Amino acid sequence: MSDLSVDLNVDMGEGFGRWSFVPDAQFMPHISSANIACGFHAGDPRIMRETVSAALDYGLQIGAHVALPDLLGFGRRRMAVSPQELRDYTVYQVGALQAFVQARGHRLGHVKPHGVMYVMMAEDAELAEAVIAAVAEIDPNMLLYSLDERHQGLADGYGVTIIREGFVDLAYDGRGNLVIERIKQAWDPELVAERAVRFVREERIATSDGSDLCFRPKTLCLHGDAPNSVEVIQTVRRRLDEHEIAVRPLVEDSVRVVG
Amino acid sequence: MSDLSVDLNVDMGEGFGRWSFVPDAQFMPHISSANIACGFHAGDPRIMRETVSAALDYGLQIGAHVALPDLLGFGRRRMAVSPQELRDYTVYQVGALQAFVQARGHRLGHVKPHGVMYVMMAEDAELAEAVIAAVAEIDPNMLLYSLDERHQGLADGYGVTIIREGFVDLAYDGRGNLVIERIKQAWDPELVAERAVRFVREERIATSDGSDLCFRPKTLCLHGDAPNSVEVIQTVRRRLDEHEIAVRPLVEDSVRVVG
Amino acid sequence: MSDLSVDLNVDMGEGFGRWSFVPDAQFMPHISSANIACGFHAGDPRIMRETVSAALDYGLQIGAHVALPDLLGFGRRRMAVSPQELRDYTVYQVGALQAFVQARGHRLGHVKPHGVMYVMMAEDAELAEAVIAAVAEIDPNMLLYSLDERHQGLADGYGVTIIREGFVDLAYDGRGNLVIERIKQAWDPELVAERAVRFVREERIATSDGSDLCFRPKTLCLHGDAPNSVEVIQTVRRRLDEHEIAVRPLVEDSVRVVG
Amino acid sequence: MSDLSVDLNVDMGEGFGRWSFVPDAQFMPHISSANIACGFHAGDPRIMRETVSAALDYGLQIGAHVALPDLLGFGRRRMAVSPQELRDYTVYQVGALQAFVQARGHRLGHVKPHGVMYVMMAEDAELAEAVIAAVAEIDPNMLLYSLDERHQGLADGYGVTIIREGFVDLAYDGRGNLVIERIKQAWDPELVAERAVRFVREERIATSDGSDLCFRPKTLCLHGDAPNSVEVIQTVRRRLDEHEIAVRPLVEDSVRVVG
Repeated sequence: MSDLSVDLNVDMGEGFGRWSFVPDAQFMPHISSANIACGFHAGDPRIMRETVSAALDYGLQIGAHVALPDLLGFGRRRMAVSPQELRDYTVYQVGALQAFVQARGHRLGHVKPHGVMYVMMAEDAELAEAVIAAVAEIDPNMLLYSLDERHQGLADGYGVTIIREGFVDLAYDGRGNLVIERIKQAWDPELVAERAVRFVREERIATSDGSDLCFRPKTLCLHGDAPNSVEVIQTVRRRLDEHEIAVRPLVEDSVRVVG
Repeated sequence: MSDLSVDLNVDMGEGFGRWSFVPDAQFMPHISSANIACGFHAGDPRIMRETVSAALDYGLQIGAHVALPDLLGFGRRRMAVSPQELRDYTVYQVGALQAFVQARGHRLGHVKPHGVMYVMMAEDAELAEAVIAAVAEIDPNMLLYSLDERHQGLADGYGVTIIREGFVDLAYDGRGNLVIERIKQAWDPELVAERAVRFVREERIATSDGSDLCFRPKTLCLHGDAPNSVEVIQTVRRRLDEHEIAVRPLVEDSVRVVG
Repeated sequence: MSDLSVDLNVDMGEGFGRWSFVPDAQFMPHISSANIACGFHAGDPRIMRETVSAALDYGLQIGAHVALPDLLGFGRRRMAVSPQELRDYTVYQVGALQAFVQARGHRLGHVKPHGVMYVMMAEDAELAEAVIAAVAEIDPNMLLYSLDERHQGLADGYGVTIIREGFVDLAYDGRGNLVIERIKQAWDPELVAERAVRFVREERIATSDGSDLCFRPKTLCLHGDAPNSVEVIQTVRRRLDEHEIAVRPLVEDSVRVVG
Repeated sequence: MSDLSVDLNVDMGEGFGRWSFVPDAQFMPHISSANIACGFHAGDPRIMRETVSAALDYGLQIGAHVALPDLLGFGRRRMAVSPQELRDYTVYQVGALQAFVQARGHRLGHVKPHGVMYVMMAEDAELAEAVIAAVAEIDPNMLLYSLDERHQGLADGYGVTIIREGFVDLAYDGRGNLVIERIKQAWDPELVAERAVRFVREERIATSDGSDLCFRPKTLCLHGDAPNSVEVIQTVRRRLDEHEIAVRPLVEDSVRVVG
């Protein structure tokens, strides 16, 4: 019998004020962790509270989805921020979200950088280290989701654990880099589910040049903004269940009551 | 020998980006607590980190200076926010500042509402209760500074302690309401210092109609944006020292190292 | 044969950045003028350009849909702005939108205040006069849509023409005030269309207490954010056409080429 | 007798809300044009109106000082904006400022990009062309100030006139690029004045490697944010006067009454 497990994470709370983005609540029953926007690329205090609350009701691990300060550009435009600026922005956003989680008696489980900030960290070790330092100084028990396994080397000195994300509803190119879609396309749910099962069981995933990219993905990211996201996420979950791969948070105590 | 004491608090960190406001550092040696802006009426992540850091270096108690979301109006314009909105804004801002304090191994000591939000809470019990509830759900050990002693009645049910502020560089009218100056005027430093000493020793302060307003002010607010603020604050401190009135934080453990 | 006519206006361009609001393009074939958000409650430069461009392609009269500076609250929360502030905000927003219209060789036809700003002007003559003055100083040929016919008295001195809007997909109470729905409800399309036809032909509309409110509505507002807005707008247009009531802009030369 | 002339321009209106930046009014008597912030890096509707008004009182030519949307970073941080985005941002900002000028019966004289946007245009012809196109579609009579004389080639097709700025209170390196100071330093007023006189009379200015950079600067930029800016600007003006070099706007009719 299998004792495989994986975390399934989805970005959430990406509305602002009067505007909503995707139907977060429909994804929650099927996944194990929620990356919640903190007001810099999306999200506002009401949305943060409501999304945290719903996610905790489903037993999800909560992560701070931190971003560059660019509401107009949804955090997707490169900005020349210094490492210190990025560290300060991370502390601010993690703190803001943490308070909503704390208000419910729980703890933040992880931090996941959003959009171009995520890519910039994979390209620039100083920026990556700035975010690692921010996580360390707030709470080194928070996991840091990353595109780049080399970040663990930087994180060791800070006592921070890096979790390399796997992606199954995006393509990897032959060098293992993600092929970002400007507007998220509909992928075949069965194909995505097969990729997920293989990634967890065999620790490998096909790339666009036919080779395999090999690593063990402790967490898989699924996107909520494809036209068929609900179906994709449900299908992935059902197939993982069928293969007795447990879908569960990486940080069990992130959802325990404090005090 | 006297064993009187009082907290002296000043609003700080009220710049934004390239803009600074007043020379906070000059006030820090003379006071015991700092109300630090959290980004809604003023303040940004860099300024928050730097102000927290300097304040902790001086051993000051740190408070979150929470405000309505109106950077353009400096949090001084009435806005029709609902109690739930105000609660959410408070959680967000307190959380953001708390993370910078936590990053230095300390704890927030208090929350002080800014500008018109402070006045709105004194006028509307539902808004006051919303802020009390926010403080309670984040950390009921934080004190809540208030204009209105009646808030303690609301706060009792939440386990939150209200601290009624005294003002010595503003006038009270005959009903005990503050006379807000649109642009902070220079007050005679000796006059302000005398008012402070009398307020602490005799628990009374003169109002504009000649009567006295009577209560024991555990904390006195001094303004940093008068033309002669540095001199006023130094003079108040010197006179309190001369009268052996200790100037100290209300929450000693707010500045102890956590963990 | 009838030579009746009316303008049909709809609020448009109310997205922001990555977020969209309602499918503006579906309304455009059926109406004669577009109130386009200017960035204060909604709208951004890209959306403004695209909405202006589409609206001009349909021959619509363009209006600046000016608002209080509250993106988070969608311009629906009362703020204590001074008449001078409101005047400055109006000049800024009208100017920004005007440039996109000018870039296409056309002129702005009107200004329509949004949300709570519209209501505040109906309650406070000083605020109304501030907006009138702003219109006058930019271009007194622009019409100012208003809730309150008494504004014409104020506007006379400025050479500005007030157009009192009629509403057919909202209720009027017995005193002629609109009953604002927090979330726009679906109204029966045929009922709305009947109200529109009667309003134009008979210059009267039923209120909630059974009496009629009587005035000639040169423009009718239809809302794009009801669940069945497309159907309502199509139905109103079809019925107006059947009654040979021409749907056309009030300012013919607003869409003429400049220079 | 000399009939030399030059425009002296200074950036102005760079406060926001409660925050001010530099004492603009002190510069106005000595110069001929004002670049006024439009709300993206600095400036707000009140400040724009007040600065336009004061500048017109001094007979200054008004320019729109357009920037990237980064209030927090004062428009000094590179952002990956597309040419279309930059074009839209330019139209929006020019339009907003234009309305304040129009409200006073005058016309905008020029557009000057601010901060890193200015540098990005010198590096990327597509971005430069986007701004040129925006100027052309609003009003091709507006001059476009530029760091790069090659922009005239791009601008010819749009009927737009490029004015290459000269800088006398910053250093040029040997390749003719400006050496940007992170915080504006105090320069010797007499040295700056000598550089200005020589630049206008001899059409050349010394660079940091000892060579001369040669072009005729129709406009000279002076900075208001050095510790001794008032003295520098006064001195430059006095020395230009002594050399009978007229300081005057490039666009005389920018300050004529419209209509």
